[in-house]
Amino acid sequence: MKIDSGMLEDFARGAAFLGTGGGGDPYIGRLCCAHAIEQYGAPQLLALQDLPDEANVFSVAGMGAPTVLVEKLFSLEEAHLAVAKLEQFLGRRADAIIAAESGGINATLPVAYAAMRRLPVIDADGMGRAFPSIQMVSFNVYGVACTPMVIANEHGESVIVETDGALAAEQLGRTLVVQMGGSAMLSCYPMSGAEAKRTAVAATLSAAHGIGRAIAAGRSAGQPVAAVIEYLRSTTYYRHAYRLFDGKIVDVQRETTRGWVLGRCVLEALRGGGERLEIQFQNENLCAHRDGRLIATVPDLIVVVDRETAEPITTEGLRYGQRVCVLGVSAPPALRTPEALAVLGPQAFKLDHPFTPIETLSTTA
Amino acid sequence: MKIDSGMLEDFARGAAFLGTGGGGDPYIGRLCCAHAIEQYGAPQLLALQDLPDEANVFSVAGMGAPTVLVEKLFSLEEAHLAVAKLEQFLGRRADAIIAAESGGINATLPVAYAAMRRLPVIDADGMGRAFPSIQMVSFNVYGVACTPMVIANEHGESVIVETDGALAAEQLGRTLVVQMGGSAMLSCYPMSGAEAKRTAVAATLSAAHGIGRAIAAGRSAGQPVAAVIEYLRSTTYYRHAYRLFDGKIVDVQRETTRGWVLGRCVLEALRGGGERLEIQFQNENLCAHRDGRLIATVPDLIVVVDRETAEPITTEGLRYGQRVCVLGVSAPPALRTPEALAVLGPQAFKLDHPFTPIETLSTTA
Repeated sequence: MKIDSGMLEDFARGAAFLGTGGGGDPYIGRLCCAHAIEQYGAPQLLALQDLPDEANVFSVAGMGAPTVLVEKLFSLEEAHLAVAKLEQFLGRRADAIIAAESGGINATLPVAYAAMRRLPVIDADGMGRAFPSIQMVSFNVYGVACTPMVIANEHGESVIVETDGALAAEQLGRTLVVQMGGSAMLSCYPMSGAEAKRTAVAATLSAAHGIGRAIAAGRSAGQPVAAVIEYLRSTTYYRHAYRLFDGKIVDVQRETTRGWVLGRCVLEALRGGGERLEIQFQNENLCAHRDGRLIATVPDLIVVVDRETAEPITTEGLRYGQRVCVLGVSAPPALRTPEALAVLGPQAFKLDHPFTPIETLSTTA
Repeated sequence: MKIDSGMLEDFARGAAFLGTGGGGDPYIGRLCCAHAIEQYGAPQLLALQDLPDEANVFSVAGMGAPTVLVEKLFSLEEAHLAVAKLEQFLGRRADAIIAAESGGINATLPVAYAAMRRLPVIDADGMGRAFPSIQMVSFNVYGVACTPMVIANEHGESVIVETDGALAAEQLGRTLVVQMGGSAMLSCYPMSGAEAKRTAVAATLSAAHGIGRAIAAGRSAGQPVAAVIEYLRSTTYYRHAYRLFDGKIVDVQRETTRGWVLGRCVLEALRGGGERLEIQFQNENLCAHRDGRLIATVPDLIVVVDRETAEPITTEGLRYGQRVCVLGVSAPPALRTPEALAVLGPQAFKLDHPFTPIETLSTTA
């Protein structure tokens, strides 16, 4: 299967949905993909199980606060500098490209880059969603080394980082990205096909496409939110999908600091009664409390969409007065294991509640 | 000529003198050298003109605020990690080691490291003194590329930086060093023997040794300050040497920030009359004003020594009540050219006076 131009709108919208508030404007990612496919041809979407064990797999991603990413357009040349430096350093060339996350522009960028390199892009990623930090990825949870990692910027500057552990790579990398202008391209977790098959979350790029397609079909039928929930319930990972809240945004606090967008958003119920929902975010939506009671938490997905169109709204797109619908969706099982929760669960974000699956919270709510 | 254990005390003290207030505690550098020479043997001190054109020359230095460097003992393993990563990245091995600066521990460290590697250390550096920033070096002024540059720390972490220009390398490197614990080891300006001969400041390690020896001899004769001035006047670079001020320290302001020690020190004349000298510093002493009038400025050397022993006092060693002597010494000519002044003259430190040679300031004072 190839990812052709006709699929890009749905794919980018679905990726924005899986971005759970982070990952940057999908419109930018779509433009970048469309341009690359026009210039180089459509890349092959390779199923994870079809990847040869000995293949050299390289990731590529943008890093930085989405508020900066949307202002500073990136180029594939930056992405190529990051990957090419890593290839040069390791003395081996990429056979396939993998996404680190399937949310936002970090889902679309690897597709565009794979087109440019005329390499397949693997139908998988390290999250099945988006996360704000380099270590919060199944590759790390299940034992692939994060470094050597290359960070490159639009000035042709590059940095090769080798650390003991992915958290140290995140800390050094974050500092570098802030110094390099607030956003940069990176390539990390270089791995074999066997390692990718053992650690990646499979079939997530095609899931992004499916989500976008469901929204489009739902729009034609006048029920886009219901349509996307129905689609999610038909998938393996995302089958616990709930419409958590219909409300109007009455407060947004947002700060771009230390390379992230941090903040919270408060919604008031449309049906009256004064019920309130509060969402905390760090690039991505982290947890939702309804009238003080937890109803969804990382690593499960919390997605804010427009009530009428189901268009996903990123944390930097939240505006006072917007009428939105908040969805809660189960995370892939690989993200819900104890070892995964230690790296990307509530405590990793210094939240004071334990992880409870969305399907449990919804039943008891 | 070899640098043997018997020379180390004089060499380290002379290096502290050329450190002009920066460069860390010479005692630490001396211990490090003594240990390396005991373990590996004395390294050869190779005259710059004897270096083959095609030799691979690698520098090694510590980076960070001296206040941190004195607390965090570094090891030769860290230094080796920096150089070895650079050798690996470039695919060539060092034939000789060069100091980036001849002041403080960055003069002694390359000697210790050369001993460990059983390589010659070149009798030269990029300053003939010390400076607080990576770009402030004759290698950069006269066209050697700063990067690829490797920064390594005591946790075995390393970063290879490639930037467009030495100033960008300094900015990224400084950020990294702060993140990596306040001090780290680096290797940068990899160059050929021909480039070293074209750009380095020759005979500065032997000058450091000569300065230390003069102080020691002067102590025996009861006139160490006079003795070091007499020695400096016999050299090519440092022949304009003046006793600028004898005073008591009445005020020290010092802040460790953004990877540097910044501050100023005020002295009151011992001979009475209320005459005051103010020295501004950024790791190193930058300029001296007597009663508001400039009497010495970078790149010329401003050295604070103990009045009785001529022991050099680093900026982090300045204490209220110390009775000191302030010396002003001409910088090597390579640091006084217009292209050098643009990189390491008063304006590079955002000082609002132009460079005027110490010999001119002293005549008109």
